[in-house]
Amino acid sequence: MEAFDGVRCRAEAVEAFLGALLRGAGASPESAAAAARALTDASARAVDTHGIRLAPHYLRGLAGGRINPAPRVRVERRAAAVLHVDGDDGLGHLASYRAIEAGMEVARESGLAAVAVGRSTHHGATGCYTLAAARQGFAALGMTNADAIVAPHDGVKPFLGTNPISFAVPAAGGQPLLLDMATSSIPLNRVLLRRDTGAPLPPEVALDAAGAMTVDPFAAAALMPLGGAGFGYKGAGLAVMIDILCSAFTGMLHGAMLPSFTAADVAVPARLGHFFIVFAPGAFQPEDGFAERMRAFLEDLRGQPARPGQRVLAPGDPEWAAFAERSAHGVPIDAATWACLGEFGQRFGCALPEVVGRTGPAC
Amino acid sequence: MEAFDGVRCRAEAVEAFLGALLRGAGASPESAAAAARALTDASARAVDTHGIRLAPHYLRGLAGGRINPAPRVRVERRAAAVLHVDGDDGLGHLASYRAIEAGMEVARESGLAAVAVGRSTHHGATGCYTLAAARQGFAALGMTNADAIVAPHDGVKPFLGTNPISFAVPAAGGQPLLLDMATSSIPLNRVLLRRDTGAPLPPEVALDAAGAMTVDPFAAAALMPLGGAGFGYKGAGLAVMIDILCSAFTGMLHGAMLPSFTAADVAVPARLGHFFIVFAPGAFQPEDGFAERMRAFLEDLRGQPARPGQRVLAPGDPEWAAFAERSAHGVPIDAATWACLGEFGQRFGCALPEVVGRTGPAC
Repeated sequence: MEAFDGVRCRAEAVEAFLGALLRGAGASPESAAAAARALTDASARAVDTHGIRLAPHYLRGLAGGRINPAPRVRVERRAAAVLHVDGDDGLGHLASYRAIEAGMEVARESGLAAVAVGRSTHHGATGCYTLAAARQGFAALGMTNADAIVAPHDGVKPFLGTNPISFAVPAAGGQPLLLDMATSSIPLNRVLLRRDTGAPLPPEVALDAAGAMTVDPFAAAALMPLGGAGFGYKGAGLAVMIDILCSAFTGMLHGAMLPSFTAADVAVPARLGHFFIVFAPGAFQPEDGFAERMRAFLEDLRGQPARPGQRVLAPGDPEWAAFAERSAHGVPIDAATWACLGEFGQRFGCALPEVVGRTGPAC
Repeated sequence: MEAFDGVRCRAEAVEAFLGALLRGAGASPESAAAAARALTDASARAVDTHGIRLAPHYLRGLAGGRINPAPRVRVERRAAAVLHVDGDDGLGHLASYRAIEAGMEVARESGLAAVAVGRSTHHGATGCYTLAAARQGFAALGMTNADAIVAPHDGVKPFLGTNPISFAVPAAGGQPLLLDMATSSIPLNRVLLRRDTGAPLPPEVALDAAGAMTVDPFAAAALMPLGGAGFGYKGAGLAVMIDILCSAFTGMLHGAMLPSFTAADVAVPARLGHFFIVFAPGAFQPEDGFAERMRAFLEDLRGQPARPGQRVLAPGDPEWAAFAERSAHGVPIDAATWACLGEFGQRFGCALPEVVGRTGPAC
């Protein structure tokens, strides 16, 4: 959640506009709807790095041939609690929503389902899919691998992706608990943003091209795993776990073998893997007991004493606060993205969504 | 793996001795065997913090009444892929080995199994159980909650346990990949050790009683989550996820409500929860394809360029190197633990295992 100059639009209007653009770029109605939903959902919760601003990336991927515009997503049940989803090189958002929906169906029956997704592409924020499950009363764990940008612990060049892990659980009487975190300390976007602002990076989050730690955003050539110089083996260990679940378990190659997300060549299929586990809480504990335990836990956590001027929050709380604000005042879109979307809109004959407000570093 | 003065004994001899001590303290043969196996397994892989040196803790817990010496562990299948294990307040090692065994049985059939363990006690190193699954060709995820010692992000007093997560996967032609990490940067043991050595703590791993960061091991009153001051919301988020899976999903209370591990009063049942997920890789991908992907991944990871004087390692590699050395030369037992075990041995009429070597800070 970094401040930026831009406009504000209603989430529903943004979602409709993005859907129209994606269809304009050739995406099938269901593909376009899935991607527009996920991007808007992420931005509505202030996960701006993985929201609306990624739309041009997908539009270019569709134009370039990396993304199959009309995939035939196949869901195969390989065991009582195991599903495999073949994304057919389509938008990763469609494959991931399908995976979660199929996972919920199986979890309703078996109590639990693992869904391994292969032949997919970038799916935006992993939390969109675990959240979709939590909205239906399920808990879910989600992961994705990604192309190499993070160095292994004690390594000097990128090998792992930022490989995020997300966990969502329904919480009676409130928004779901929603953890969604990269296993690097910071995402690449943060480095790029600091190149614009000129501010140094935090210590122990990036390496230069020679593999030495750097706080210069222009020198940063690789990210360090969560835990920094002393404890980065933990962040790297989690990234390794995620890479394995998203490659060996999905039949895909590991992150280091994937084409770069930022490469100019967008013709090669990304072939990402995702991995989801869907839990039916009622298969573990009586529903009311489970809800009461969650309530007591969250109340206890949020009531913990904090540093001066701070509050102890549950995972997702900052995003839910932003969601409330953005629901009332519109979702911000930064100026560069807005201009880019305007160009795509012109090309595909889609009118930009209505501007309902302005935002800026001071807002 | 901190250096210490002590003796070395063969792992088999240690395991037999610990089993005899635990039986001497009243533990049923199966309880004693499970705990002796786990403690020796941890020490054999140089996880000394969770190995032999914990034996006195369990012996006191059995004597004090916290641990039921002869539990009736019950395994209940609550859905096609969901098991609940009631540990009956016995040694957590027995409940956990039972959980993994039952999980493998279900995963053989359903491809996947979640096992929620309630009414358990401290189970040593969580990696012992995921490793037991990997030795049988399964992958496994393991977690446990624990009493509060870690502050939430932006918090000033303990609320979360060190809540470890472990992941093990079989790797053809080598030892399994084995991640086993606390979600705090360092364990409490490391603080206690630094009190002995007088060395300062690393920065951003501990808080004093007022909630300020400290590097003074004597002032440390709470641990900080993995990620430190800047990114501790990630470590804390993982700890929250683990606490929920080990409490709301098992029917137990969350970590902050559990009695202290180090409390003098060892009469109150610990009521910990553990959570395991067992995966049958063959239900996801053809077995040979899976093995080949794992081989290629590990070869690629271990071949990555490293900082001068370092090597890039896979999770578990340092422990497997220690395992080879300890298999050849015996498992080290620190002098204080050795003396304590000697006293218990005298009380229960068990001869100490044969000393096959010595170890010291210089070894």
